[in-house]
Amino acid sequence: MVVNMKGRFITLEGTEGVGKTSNLNFIENILRDAGIDVVRTREPGGPPLSETIRKMVLDTHQDDICDDTELLLMFAARAQHLHQLIIPALEAGKWVVCDRFTDATYAYQGGGRGIDQSRIAILEKWVQGDLRPDLTFLLDMPVEDGLARASSRSEPDRFELEKQDFFEHVRHTYLRRAKAEPERVKIIDASPSLDKVQHQIGEVLSEILAQ
Amino acid sequence: MVVNMKGRFITLEGTEGVGKTSNLNFIENILRDAGIDVVRTREPGGPPLSETIRKMVLDTHQDDICDDTELLLMFAARAQHLHQLIIPALEAGKWVVCDRFTDATYAYQGGGRGIDQSRIAILEKWVQGDLRPDLTFLLDMPVEDGLARASSRSEPDRFELEKQDFFEHVRHTYLRRAKAEPERVKIIDASPSLDKVQHQIGEVLSEILAQ
Repeated sequence: MVVNMKGRFITLEGTEGVGKTSNLNFIENILRDAGIDVVRTREPGGPPLSETIRKMVLDTHQDDICDDTELLLMFAARAQHLHQLIIPALEAGKWVVCDRFTDATYAYQGGGRGIDQSRIAILEKWVQGDLRPDLTFLLDMPVEDGLARASSRSEPDRFELEKQDFFEHVRHTYLRRAKAEPERVKIIDASPSLDKVQHQIGEVLSEILAQ
Repeated sequence: MVVNMKGRFITLEGTEGVGKTSNLNFIENILRDAGIDVVRTREPGGPPLSETIRKMVLDTHQDDICDDTELLLMFAARAQHLHQLIIPALEAGKWVVCDRFTDATYAYQGGGRGIDQSRIAILEKWVQGDLRPDLTFLLDMPVEDGLARASSRSEPDRFELEKQDFFEHVRHTYLRRAKAEPERVKIIDASPSLDKVQHQIGEVLSEILAQ
């Protein structure tokens, strides 16, 4: 897969309740204010077929879905998302801001479910070739604080029903990936007030906008 | 994946209209008459989640599904099918008779859609490890004869809407695989009358039952 990426690909990651939605709005607004054509999307999801797959994997009634099946469905949704939406947008010079991407697969299906990172890497290469985000924000906070925030929202999906131990593994995997790729993955302390969190994000965005 | 296969795994393959259903009934009856506990199933499909994926990939309204997505969905359905149904049955000493399996993926997504065989092989290994059918019947006849038979049946699905050229590639791939693995894949001439076809199948089954 040869992708002539004229736009930039930014992803936002984190465990439950870290404040992704507010900060996605913030990122989108900063980029639009800078005159950038932004496509905001999410994973699993994006185009209609990928959203259908999303419903399937988040459905709390799918309690017998095997780990390998879940992972393949995530990458099936991603393949459709890349070909129909992300790659055409990047090639057209738009910036894509995506709520979760393959780091989440390593964190949830790898760290959480226990699938070997090397098996995930095979599918990542198969689906994406060399395509990776240019910049990833990892919103990080203690798992129990995030879960306390998330529990006050809507009905939990199939992942949100997992226990704290699952999310500790997810968080640990996210942090390990961030430390392995510090140029790409910026850890944002999501514990303080929203304006302090957004100050951190704004500083990173200023740098990339100045490039 | 280590599978202690006490039962045998038999698959039936072929392009549209070659008479798979009648011959699946025939195979199932012969095995049952021999006192064998048979599980009959199909691909894509089997357990409920795999049947849901089947609906998705056969749906004629899914006209924008990308080739990679289609292939990943096939293997997602297969992973679920293997873990929930096929492997437990084989380990329990049952014989599994399956209407299509991974040879169909090579034939339809490889030969038909043009995905590299080597890319399919990566997913086959990822999902199945070393698990392969013990015996595969390839029902073979000229594509146009099969299509003429198939067109008199129910509404065509998303694959049946393909043109003759697509199915020529499918047939060619099936035959090439059969020639590469003559011990496993038995080519059955599906052109003559049903009793002559079943005579050929019966002879192969007699051999495997005598082992």
